[in-house]
Amino acid sequence: MVALRMAPEWDITTWLNTDVPISLASLRGRPIVAAGFQMLCPGCVAETIPQLNRIHRLFPADQLAVIGLHSVFEHHEAMREPSLRAFLHEYGVRFPVGIDRHVTGDPIPTTMRTYGFQGTPTLLLIDADGRLRRQHFGHIPDLQLGAEIMALMRDAALKSVSAADVPDDHGPRCEIGATSC
Amino acid sequence: MVALRMAPEWDITTWLNTDVPISLASLRGRPIVAAGFQMLCPGCVAETIPQLNRIHRLFPADQLAVIGLHSVFEHHEAMREPSLRAFLHEYGVRFPVGIDRHVTGDPIPTTMRTYGFQGTPTLLLIDADGRLRRQHFGHIPDLQLGAEIMALMRDAALKSVSAADVPDDHGPRCEIGATSC
Amino acid sequence: MVALRMAPEWDITTWLNTDVPISLASLRGRPIVAAGFQMLCPGCVAETIPQLNRIHRLFPADQLAVIGLHSVFEHHEAMREPSLRAFLHEYGVRFPVGIDRHVTGDPIPTTMRTYGFQGTPTLLLIDADGRLRRQHFGHIPDLQLGAEIMALMRDAALKSVSAADVPDDHGPRCEIGATSC
Amino acid sequence: MVALRMAPEWDITTWLNTDVPISLASLRGRPIVAAGFQMLCPGCVAETIPQLNRIHRLFPADQLAVIGLHSVFEHHEAMREPSLRAFLHEYGVRFPVGIDRHVTGDPIPTTMRTYGFQGTPTLLLIDADGRLRRQHFGHIPDLQLGAEIMALMRDAALKSVSAADVPDDHGPRCEIGATSC
Repeated sequence: MVALRMAPEWDITTWLNTDVPISLASLRGRPIVAAGFQMLCPGCVAETIPQLNRIHRLFPADQLAVIGLHSVFEHHEAMREPSLRAFLHEYGVRFPVGIDRHVTGDPIPTTMRTYGFQGTPTLLLIDADGRLRRQHFGHIPDLQLGAEIMALMRDAALKSVSAADVPDDHGPRCEIGATSC
Repeated sequence: MVALRMAPEWDITTWLNTDVPISLASLRGRPIVAAGFQMLCPGCVAETIPQLNRIHRLFPADQLAVIGLHSVFEHHEAMREPSLRAFLHEYGVRFPVGIDRHVTGDPIPTTMRTYGFQGTPTLLLIDADGRLRRQHFGHIPDLQLGAEIMALMRDAALKSVSAADVPDDHGPRCEIGATSC
Repeated sequence: MVALRMAPEWDITTWLNTDVPISLASLRGRPIVAAGFQMLCPGCVAETIPQLNRIHRLFPADQLAVIGLHSVFEHHEAMREPSLRAFLHEYGVRFPVGIDRHVTGDPIPTTMRTYGFQGTPTLLLIDADGRLRRQHFGHIPDLQLGAEIMALMRDAALKSVSAADVPDDHGPRCEIGATSC
Repeated sequence: MVALRMAPEWDITTWLNTDVPISLASLRGRPIVAAGFQMLCPGCVAETIPQLNRIHRLFPADQLAVIGLHSVFEHHEAMREPSLRAFLHEYGVRFPVGIDRHVTGDPIPTTMRTYGFQGTPTLLLIDADGRLRRQHFGHIPDLQLGAEIMALMRDAALKSVSAADVPDDHGPRCEIGATSC
């Protein structure tokens, strides 16, 4: 659980699955479920993307925003925009996905660095006032995530009481510096 | 979705996993997740019991009651109390389970008849004021059930807005009159 | 891996899903996949019974016999014949199942004791000549079991070369003397 | 089931996970399990690659060859060699993978065209004499595939008697001409 600070603005080079670029500010008024992922991170593919698709289908778009952040920190040449576009098509992803910006000489993209992602997947829960309520490296089970989303939808001022309940079994994930996921 | 009537009192012969008998009235003030099940209903065993165990572990007991109702409408001789006790032990069930009462000559137990369960599993969501917010024959996915539970926990007066979202894929279940589950 | 001895005859009180009682001798000429199980053993229900059903559907009955042995060593009152009959009906079991015999004063049934089952599930592979080729406490993955079955079907004289490959992850199982499965 | 013709030689531009290029001829004497796949085909990622990894771990390399054929017929720019290399690394693939050759102007690579793959995944079973025993578009369950592999290992002259048993439920797959998988 991260302290209740304002979620830093995302730094995105290209947005997919949306006609207009998205900013955190433009989503104010709705809670947000966002996930930092990589298209070749096995845990992201097996768990996070299907979970985000389920969330996107279940909750009304005017009450909850679902966002993907493609934060590539390894195998950069393997996960460029054409590969990501094909991935999103094949996996039926309809929610907006932003490509996290790289600056010369740094393998870690800027949004990932700003938030301090430890790797992928990293889930973010942001409330309707733009505060970062939760940042979690790994998987959160559907039952708990459904409850936390509804809490945000019900009470923008809520302190995320269930944040302490994250199970130790965080699922498969890719960590910075690990030789493999 | 059932209209917002008061949940009828359960009619139970024996309570397991609790020192004192439980009544709906005694739970007033907390929302309730209850499920009508049979220990030999494959869908109940594969989906409902593990889901109730997850709910029971995740949410604080003073904020949510989790209850099983053993509503046997078939194979009566096969699912008597000693078999149920062993089942609960082997499947690690710690929440209270009530045995739905049978009256002479009726294969359908009385709570099942009062509520009009179509079969098992049947999920009930009851709010803190004792109103029946949801009665669903079959499975509700974790993401949606987690959200609905949190809605009840947050707002006892809530009209269950998400009730219309139950997916058609209700999972395996045992229906009255079917030759098999 | 058990040495290549003749499989001891089973000691069965009642056969279900067959018009005539079955003996090991009566199956001579066909390899046999048999499993000691209990209807309230969670690992048996989740893994072994579905696996035996798949085997029974896939391989021709005149080339392979599939047999269940209901070897109850705990919760005896909970798993009597009427409960077992309902269980087999609800889980779609069509292959023959024998109820392992109990003698007064011994909680372990006689076939289980003769073979030295450590608990349930226990898989037995018996070749067409009646020799016990494999006895395994726990689960064997489908890929390996499919290969071992075909080896028996192809070569009755085969020494089970792949027996050493049983993975350590044996899946859920019920062990004698454990407080729960 | 394809008639018992000799398996045509593969046409590969680059081999990965092997020090020397592989030809069908060089594998003569061992049966082969090969799969045409694409790294962005969801069914291949969820089912085929894990299944090939299991096969590669279970069976001795001197008795069975496991081969991947990267036959890209869509999203060509998305699945070039650097992306494939990263994919193989992240998914723990250790068996040899050949990149199916493209010729100018044809989106279908040459090995795929020669064999007449309908899409991906396509499984090939080739016997020790180089004959194509089985070509299947979609998934084959582990139990059956394990049995078929052992049959090939046991009897190079076998006519694949179980080929008719492929279940209708072939699992997820990518078909030529479909808008998505």
